[in-house]
Amino acid sequence: MSGATLIRVHPLDNVAVAAAEEGLPAGTPLEGGAALREFVPAGHKVALEPIPQGGEVRRYGAVIGRALCSIEAGARVREEMLELPQPPPLDKLCAPHAPPPELEPLEGFTFDGYRNADGTVGTRNVLAITTTVQCVAAVVEHAAARIRRELLPRYANVDGVAALTHAYGCGVAIDAPNSEIPIRTVRNLALNPNFGGELLVVSLGCEKLEPQRLELPSAELPLVRLQEAPDGSFEALLGRILELAEQRLERLNARRRVPCPASGLVVGLQCGGSDAFSGITANPAVGFAADLLVRAGATVIFSEITEVRDAAHLLAARAASADVVEDLRREFAWYDAYLARGGADRSANPTPGNRRGGLVNVVEKALGSVAKSGRAPLAGVIAPGERAARHGLLFLAGPASDFICGTLELAAGMNVHVFTTGLGTPYGLPACPVIKVSTRTSLARRWPDLIDFDAGPIATGGMTLEEAGWALFRLILDTASGRRTWTERHGLENSLVLFNPAPVT
Amino acid sequence: MSGATLIRVHPLDNVAVAAAEEGLPAGTPLEGGAALREFVPAGHKVALEPIPQGGEVRRYGAVIGRALCSIEAGARVREEMLELPQPPPLDKLCAPHAPPPELEPLEGFTFDGYRNADGTVGTRNVLAITTTVQCVAAVVEHAAARIRRELLPRYANVDGVAALTHAYGCGVAIDAPNSEIPIRTVRNLALNPNFGGELLVVSLGCEKLEPQRLELPSAELPLVRLQEAPDGSFEALLGRILELAEQRLERLNARRRVPCPASGLVVGLQCGGSDAFSGITANPAVGFAADLLVRAGATVIFSEITEVRDAAHLLAARAASADVVEDLRREFAWYDAYLARGGADRSANPTPGNRRGGLVNVVEKALGSVAKSGRAPLAGVIAPGERAARHGLLFLAGPASDFICGTLELAAGMNVHVFTTGLGTPYGLPACPVIKVSTRTSLARRWPDLIDFDAGPIATGGMTLEEAGWALFRLILDTASGRRTWTERHGLENSLVLFNPAPVT
Repeated sequence: MSGATLIRVHPLDNVAVAAAEEGLPAGTPLEGGAALREFVPAGHKVALEPIPQGGEVRRYGAVIGRALCSIEAGARVREEMLELPQPPPLDKLCAPHAPPPELEPLEGFTFDGYRNADGTVGTRNVLAITTTVQCVAAVVEHAAARIRRELLPRYANVDGVAALTHAYGCGVAIDAPNSEIPIRTVRNLALNPNFGGELLVVSLGCEKLEPQRLELPSAELPLVRLQEAPDGSFEALLGRILELAEQRLERLNARRRVPCPASGLVVGLQCGGSDAFSGITANPAVGFAADLLVRAGATVIFSEITEVRDAAHLLAARAASADVVEDLRREFAWYDAYLARGGADRSANPTPGNRRGGLVNVVEKALGSVAKSGRAPLAGVIAPGERAARHGLLFLAGPASDFICGTLELAAGMNVHVFTTGLGTPYGLPACPVIKVSTRTSLARRWPDLIDFDAGPIATGGMTLEEAGWALFRLILDTASGRRTWTERHGLENSLVLFNPAPVT
Repeated sequence: MSGATLIRVHPLDNVAVAAAEEGLPAGTPLEGGAALREFVPAGHKVALEPIPQGGEVRRYGAVIGRALCSIEAGARVREEMLELPQPPPLDKLCAPHAPPPELEPLEGFTFDGYRNADGTVGTRNVLAITTTVQCVAAVVEHAAARIRRELLPRYANVDGVAALTHAYGCGVAIDAPNSEIPIRTVRNLALNPNFGGELLVVSLGCEKLEPQRLELPSAELPLVRLQEAPDGSFEALLGRILELAEQRLERLNARRRVPCPASGLVVGLQCGGSDAFSGITANPAVGFAADLLVRAGATVIFSEITEVRDAAHLLAARAASADVVEDLRREFAWYDAYLARGGADRSANPTPGNRRGGLVNVVEKALGSVAKSGRAPLAGVIAPGERAARHGLLFLAGPASDFICGTLELAAGMNVHVFTTGLGTPYGLPACPVIKVSTRTSLARRWPDLIDFDAGPIATGGMTLEEAGWALFRLILDTASGRRTWTERHGLENSLVLFNPAPVT
């Protein structure tokens, strides 16, 4: 390999990735005497040795496909040259003979957070308005805008207002199989640590998702039912919401950040707009930081089920117990069936942009995606919409669709979000800081005020993976303590999207 | 029956509805000598004669269920006393022997609208920003807010800016069966007559729903791909969108309202938060206005497939041709299968509010819902996401879920929306005026600046159905000419929701 311009991740690999931002020209020498037979764009793969038809194409030390034709050393390896392997069979998933060793504990790291009565810790202090049905969304968004404008300036310790609006609640098959997923997601979103339990609920009155179905813990949560307001003029409805909001703001405003151990962190990981560098730079750096977080006692959640399906056997091999393997099997099987019912499979996952970025298929994407999870034992599996119930590394078995994944991680209790991107997305969430990590320096330069951390130097030798992982870990702690991310500074918040596998009526 | 306090809709009915707002006390006399045996709340039903166990319970001249127990004359008829009938079998749907007679033409009615190059007519003059993926939504909403604040004041003839954001585009099975539904919905939304063809497209760059998949008609539509912007600073991205928006605003601002025949109207009908008065007051008044519109050459769309499934045979009997019956059969069968695949059926439709409002089941709801469609022959069926391709009365075969239905009607080309409600909803849509019609006067009084038209007096004898229908017809023409509805005055706009029966990945 010629320095940092071609990256081979694992000694077993017979392909490497062009790391130079401008790509590599034909004639670039390879180790062993061969040379590139054609131009290879950045992020795309080149065969390091001749690969016969039917031969394994290996990256990350794993088979990403079999060659459909013979591939010469120095040739660019394109999507159409590879046969997609079968996903690992779920009935063969097995737990390791001995539980994987715990990582060495890391002591003494803290952040300044808001302690909650339920033991969770907020990294932001946000007034949440939970809603039971989309019909109230426009009214609630009006109210939220007025709260921000008229009330918030008087409550300096409150970071913002989150209108938890969504498209669920009315014309849905509320008792159909799987309807529990969107319902528990709405409930658990309201319990996110960044809301401090001081929320407000707005209901219409006739919807299927009645407020009591949310089973929110406090019986005295303030609730406005628009249809039951004695004066239903628009001004009166807004006035009632503002009045209750002000009571909540008083309580939220009295809260103060205090030093908390890093174990109070619930860090949700995700990638979007991935390229072939995701698995080389940003995701391994996040994986290193994830290990540090787990060692410090925090909860780390990774997700994106269709993107890790092809690495199911690798996850099972890291499972902390046979129960975890059983949970993985159940969730993967459910998702396989959900996709099959809709006439799709996990091969629907990669986007045209992933492909242009150099990812040939979902297997390659999966291997790179799983790099985010580091090396810690897999301590548990979260069903979509459920809360994280323990510390350590957890897998959330939900879709990879960016905002659905983000919403499910919020519902799981996430208080810091780390999002890696190769092609770039202005992704932002309400109520939770999003640290955006670029896989290449060119993106960080092009989007200077949207990318929070550049992992690109890992590919060019400007930074080691360890250095990047530690820097990211410290950025996570700083962010948890109140340092604002770019999307927070711009106020960029995408809408939440519920995962609803049940039909609408 | 005692005056207007009990309403029997059809001579064959053996139940009537309590019309008094405060309900009817036990002892209230019935015709024929019986009396109410218990208090009956407004909108709820009372048996007018003894109904034996297994006997038919009839409303709207149709069977809404069979009695599970014997019901005495004067007893309140509750949901648990009725067995839900089977839906009309689709293989038995048949076209009428002779095509139903066309309604008598109505000449001379016009409104002041914006004529479009494609022959459609706008009732509003709105700058639309179409998006291909949710990732760009927050940026586009920021841009829209700045356009409204900084540019719109200089373009007095432009009514507003619609950010057509949605949750589709990335982590979806883009080639799965039924994925054509959300894709064509996004395309056809952009073609709504209220946008005058002068839209702007914002794409991310790596999404699955690539802009060319939308097959928008004009090759020179301005397109911003965020990932391809040479300067990707947040300010520069917003600046690029604002720059292109200004060019569009110049063109939109030059447009003028001109008198147009009423045949340029595409009126979408819907109900939400229905009660037992929906089928007595608001929906029949809308049906009368629908007939006037059809007679004047307009297009009238009704929808809500699960709510009319039980009236499939009644729609077939009004079909203008055998092709229409075939289209009905295909769409109903598709929807039955979609619900069955998700473990649900049309009985999932009524909401707790519908039930509290007096509707015992989906059959009763369907019969009341179909009243919106008046008496005109059914000229065609629109598959979900498709555009209306002809004038006359059309059935859009999409879900009843309010904002999905509204979104599909917008995609079909709707330029005025009429929405009836019994329990009240602050429903609003972007880019299209919504006329909200209450079924009872108490709601119109309680929500004075959310309800645009009160059909309540029909129940109390204060207005005939014909008077209400004509008044509503004139209000539709006035609204089409620029008169603002309550939700427009408040700026109440709910988000669009795409109907996506395909899985997410």
